Amino acid sequence: MLMSELSRRTGVGVPTLKFYLREGLLPPGEALSQTRAAYDESHVRRVGIIRALTETVGLSVQQARGVLAVVDDPGPSMFDAFGRALAHLPPTVPEADDYPRARDVIERLGWVYDPRYVAVRQLDQALAAADALGVPLDADRLEAYAPHVHAIAAYDIARIPADPDAAIEYAVLGTAAHEPVLAALRRLAHQDVAAPR
Amino acid sequence: MLMSELSRRTGVGVPTLKFYLREGLLPPGEALSQTRAAYDESHVRRVGIIRALTETVGLSVQQARGVLAVVDDPGPSMFDAFGRALAHLPPTVPEADDYPRARDVIERLGWVYDPRYVAVRQLDQALAAADALGVPLDADRLEAYAPHVHAIAAYDIARIPADPDAAIEYAVLGTAAHEPVLAALRRLAHQDVAAPR
Repeated sequence: MLMSELSRRTGVGVPTLKFYLREGLLPPGEALSQTRAAYDESHVRRVGIIRALTETVGLSVQQARGVLAVVDDPGPSMFDAFGRALAHLPPTVPEADDYPRARDVIERLGWVYDPRYVAVRQLDQALAAADALGVPLDADRLEAYAPHVHAIAAYDIARIPADPDAAIEYAVLGTAAHEPVLAALRRLAHQDVAAPR
Repeated sequence: MLMSELSRRTGVGVPTLKFYLREGLLPPGEALSQTRAAYDESHVRRVGIIRALTETVGLSVQQARGVLAVVDDPGPSMFDAFGRALAHLPPTVPEADDYPRARDVIERLGWVYDPRYVAVRQLDQALAAADALGVPLDADRLEAYAPHVHAIAAYDIARIPADPDAAIEYAVLGTAAHEPVLAALRRLAHQDVAAPR
């Protein structure tokens, strides 16, 4: 299909599609002439993913490009690829030499972890922020949360596609998309628990 | 204490403190003269909360002001106040006439809910985003998550302070601060589940 048709199919204007091409978010179509190219269903799908990442997940174009670069070329290690992709998702957390608060929690829980994994520093910063806000999470509370979070995670992992390329895309997009669902569900569960019966 | 001392105690520069005063985030001190005012421990604490909301939670000054306005004056209904405050926290979701997808999920779960509560539209949008990203959450999956999310929420509610003013502050700041902790924990649990033993 031509770009005009891609625009019609995706509901995204031609100038925006050209911007995605220029920024490397959308792979080029098959050149038909100097000024025209043919796009296919993979482009339709890609535009949907770009829109969802930038509009709904709220990523910048640069962050979305980072995520999509890993999805497009995950490399040999699924584990590393997932960590690299997650580093582009919010929250953005600066690197530090050590994350003692997070390490302490994870080790207390007895979970296997890679200390370089971006979630370690996210946990460290999130715990510090909770302290700063005067709503600290003590060890008892984290230990009460842990089995429930772990059960949810086990359910997630069991549903990851077996194909490695599909798996990394699923894991990255699922992380971006499912965290807001779980956050909204927890807010609703608060209401259910607190509601007068 | 004078503003210079408030600056020293909080590590926040005087120009920024003056900005917070101007924007109504920080209540004025007690006037000592035309140009000097006295600040107290409540101001130190408030500056810490403003920093945590804007820097760590990532709220805009306008959003932080909205949250703090509710915390300062929650009004008679804790339930309404919580909803109003949460409307300032991310994700920002436009209002619609109806949220059929979210309603369907919540009703299937049998949870008590107020259809005007902001979390309803957050859930609706988050589910739509997951679909758009090609990682939809089906009813089985949401039902698998629900008891775990509910158990976490019940733990949270049991720890809310009894005093109503303290409760609304705790609930709002806790929602802002604890969601990133839970998201990081889930990412780490994914790693624990997926790690080769």
